[in-house]
Amino acid sequence: MGKSRMEAFSDGVLAIIITIMVLELHAPHATDLAALRPLVPVLLSYVVSFVYIGIYWNNHHHMLATLTHVTGAVLWANLNLLFWLSLLPFVTAWVGQNGLAPTPLALYGVVLLMAAVAYFVLQGAIITAQGPESLLARAVGNDAKGRASLAMYAAAIALAGRAPGLAAGLYVAVAVVWLVPDRRIEQVLAEQRRS
Amino acid sequence: MGKSRMEAFSDGVLAIIITIMVLELHAPHATDLAALRPLVPVLLSYVVSFVYIGIYWNNHHHMLATLTHVTGAVLWANLNLLFWLSLLPFVTAWVGQNGLAPTPLALYGVVLLMAAVAYFVLQGAIITAQGPESLLARAVGNDAKGRASLAMYAAAIALAGRAPGLAAGLYVAVAVVWLVPDRRIEQVLAEQRRS
Amino acid sequence: MGKSRMEAFSDGVLAIIITIMVLELHAPHATDLAALRPLVPVLLSYVVSFVYIGIYWNNHHHMLATLTHVTGAVLWANLNLLFWLSLLPFVTAWVGQNGLAPTPLALYGVVLLMAAVAYFVLQGAIITAQGPESLLARAVGNDAKGRASLAMYAAAIALAGRAPGLAAGLYVAVAVVWLVPDRRIEQVLAEQRRS
Amino acid sequence: MGKSRMEAFSDGVLAIIITIMVLELHAPHATDLAALRPLVPVLLSYVVSFVYIGIYWNNHHHMLATLTHVTGAVLWANLNLLFWLSLLPFVTAWVGQNGLAPTPLALYGVVLLMAAVAYFVLQGAIITAQGPESLLARAVGNDAKGRASLAMYAAAIALAGRAPGLAAGLYVAVAVVWLVPDRRIEQVLAEQRRS
Repeated sequence: MGKSRMEAFSDGVLAIIITIMVLELHAPHATDLAALRPLVPVLLSYVVSFVYIGIYWNNHHHMLATLTHVTGAVLWANLNLLFWLSLLPFVTAWVGQNGLAPTPLALYGVVLLMAAVAYFVLQGAIITAQGPESLLARAVGNDAKGRASLAMYAAAIALAGRAPGLAAGLYVAVAVVWLVPDRRIEQVLAEQRRS
Repeated sequence: MGKSRMEAFSDGVLAIIITIMVLELHAPHATDLAALRPLVPVLLSYVVSFVYIGIYWNNHHHMLATLTHVTGAVLWANLNLLFWLSLLPFVTAWVGQNGLAPTPLALYGVVLLMAAVAYFVLQGAIITAQGPESLLARAVGNDAKGRASLAMYAAAIALAGRAPGLAAGLYVAVAVVWLVPDRRIEQVLAEQRRS
Repeated sequence: MGKSRMEAFSDGVLAIIITIMVLELHAPHATDLAALRPLVPVLLSYVVSFVYIGIYWNNHHHMLATLTHVTGAVLWANLNLLFWLSLLPFVTAWVGQNGLAPTPLALYGVVLLMAAVAYFVLQGAIITAQGPESLLARAVGNDAKGRASLAMYAAAIALAGRAPGLAAGLYVAVAVVWLVPDRRIEQVLAEQRRS
Repeated sequence: MGKSRMEAFSDGVLAIIITIMVLELHAPHATDLAALRPLVPVLLSYVVSFVYIGIYWNNHHHMLATLTHVTGAVLWANLNLLFWLSLLPFVTAWVGQNGLAPTPLALYGVVLLMAAVAYFVLQGAIITAQGPESLLARAVGNDAKGRASLAMYAAAIALAGRAPGLAAGLYVAVAVVWLVPDRRIEQVLAEQRRS
């Protein structure tokens, strides 16, 4: 079983998730600039979630580049990741409509945390399918960046009640850390080509 | 006529079906955890339907792997399957908004039953197109798993009025049975490669 | 410029059009069978439009099989076809919510007529790009089926006010006529392969 | 890292953007022709935005034809372009619901301007990745058409308050200018093949 349809299906779902979030930006009835003010937090939460989906799409793309055959475990680990990402439009809307209200902000972090865990599980399923000498196993290493992200999500969830601004800042910080495409997989692929 | 566009179109429709179901998860106006309680059945019905679409996508993928040319009958049998699956967001929303109300629960089963019948019809159309010696005909065999699923859907529809919990349990049970990817087609493909 | 991205984009748009129509099937608040009765015309109009999009996707697929290079005219003729088909969800909803009301029924025909004209224009653009000796020119011939469809749409629009049932019947009749995949292109392709 | 998944993802997002705009065409409750009158500006703004997305898809397609490898900068410049285009359904709805109201009309121009700037940035990122002798650098030249478009958007934004009709006319004019596919890239590609 090839991976091209799994890539195509994932791309389709991610393209839909990233786009339907904009449906939360309802055109206001009034036509002055002030009518846009309530939309600012909606837009900001959309921007953060857009960047997160972009990061997941990008890293997903790189991770699958190392995959040579799809197993049942890889397939369901991938659907599990897509499931958690599909909840992002819901929590984005809840956060956007309520500024920095604690519970929506914490739930946003829970969804990000679950998606990150699902990404780890998918990574593990691919390494299991490809073997411990696989490219991905070597590229990921001890995955300090991934572990640090989990800790930051957990911290943001815990802080959402007392310091919502700090929690929101942590979500942005993790996104910024991941904005730079993950070069580890590219490096290992390039090394392999040279040898 | 190649099958790649039929696969791409099916992937697109399934990706949209699986994603628009999340639009039923409306962000509540209140911002406390209690505001999420009414969403729990909506989320649970989403999870079950998400898994069903994942199963159909996965098995559809395997089934088409055996197809070498697309006939008019295969094409319309495929669109018929997509039609019944496209009704899943509607019945998922109806069940989710009403917990275990009998009629929505029964209609959910009717849509699953019709989709399963449509899958059988597509399977038959492919076998007709490929011939009785086709890979798919050998892989499917007497298709005990498929027949059992139809019986369980029918039982759940009949039970929805008197024992809605049992009916819902049957829908989950069928999904669990199919979660394991169907190895029959992979096995026959692997045997063919060896010989 | 290859045609694969034009096919992929068209498939994407058609997959979305065929799927978002189901969003008009709003889950009713009541949970008894009677609550579904108002949805019956909505469902019926969805079925007819689903079949029409399926037909267009199918014939579009066949028509593009004869295309070897994409010109600007072909590209915009294709977008023009997609535009008219994108209005189908709107008129489908209007017809579905109002049973056989004359104006929605006539507008449904206008959109089908414009889509059919756009299909003719795309066909002409492809023949112009490929030359009068092209496969498509030979396959289409005088295109009696296409011309008859235009006449039936025009008749249905004219009849929508006095005999709405007949107009609706004409829309169904045209769909049935086209349900059978167009063998002309396949035949000409097969002849070419033999010679 | 290949460009095919970046193309597929972009095609998916653009296909969704172009199609969800039609969701703003809500079927009216009344069933006479007069009920359609309030929808005329909504339809007209949809047509203009549909053409713009068509133009971006077309030029995006041509621009990527010159790309041989995807860098992180190209990838994020592409997501940035998709982000601004994803706001088009929102401003299209706001303009459509309010005819030629100044603020929505100006904001429509702001989104078009930002998308055009994002397109420039993507163009620059591709030229940086491919080198100053790249096909795209030669094809684009001093890009008078691109610069003129930016100036026309800026003029339309400035005019939206005093002469909304003129501002709307400028948006249509820029679209007409770009309707003709950009032959520069095709020409340079053809020259290269000849030499």
